[in-house]
Amino acid sequence: MNLRFKIWLDCDGKAFGEGPYELLKRIETTGSLHRGAAEMKMSYRKAWLLLQTMEKRLGISLLDRKVGGVSGGGSTLTEEARLFMRRYEAFRQESQKALLRIYDKHFPPE
Amino acid sequence: MNLRFKIWLDCDGKAFGEGPYELLKRIETTGSLHRGAAEMKMSYRKAWLLLQTMEKRLGISLLDRKVGGVSGGGSTLTEEARLFMRRYEAFRQESQKALLRIYDKHFPPE
Repeated sequence: MNLRFKIWLDCDGKAFGEGPYELLKRIETTGSLHRGAAEMKMSYRKAWLLLQTMEKRLGISLLDRKVGGVSGGGSTLTEEARLFMRRYEAFRQESQKALLRIYDKHFPPE
Repeated sequence: MNLRFKIWLDCDGKAFGEGPYELLKRIETTGSLHRGAAEMKMSYRKAWLLLQTMEKRLGISLLDRKVGGVSGGGSTLTEEARLFMRRYEAFRQESQKALLRIYDKHFPPE
């Protein structure tokens, strides 16, 4: 038997969780909303709408949009978005560790 | 912003979580699978299949079935099922407490 869980942040609806985190992480790595969305096999439009919803629900700005230029523009995360991701990562890691410990306590391996 | 989460036990598929717990709890209270299922607006057949799946995945017997008799039979939980529920309740309560504490630590109220 194994423990399974899903944890997310809600603010008048789902505001942040694993999917949104993954999208931001890929935008951070690729420097592009287009490429980040493509890596998740998500349409650009769907990714863009997801970001709009997150920004509204979290009340923070997530993307610095660069339009045009030699590289054809790109998207980088705001400092606020990066800080939020680091907090979420720490929260997630600590939550996972605690849940596994509590699970093992109540359902010890035979 | 609020924390939301779902926790469940998996063993080759979902083995136990809030829905199954609720069903067992109602069978415990009403002394009947029929009434327990009805209270959850679940068909008798669906509840019965859910119990079969749980029994298989958890590897424990859940129901003592009484057939016929003056009261028309009924279902009571096995001792093993009751013990499992008490473990699950303790696990769930401790998990919830830990998650809320960790959430408040990383996302303190402003």
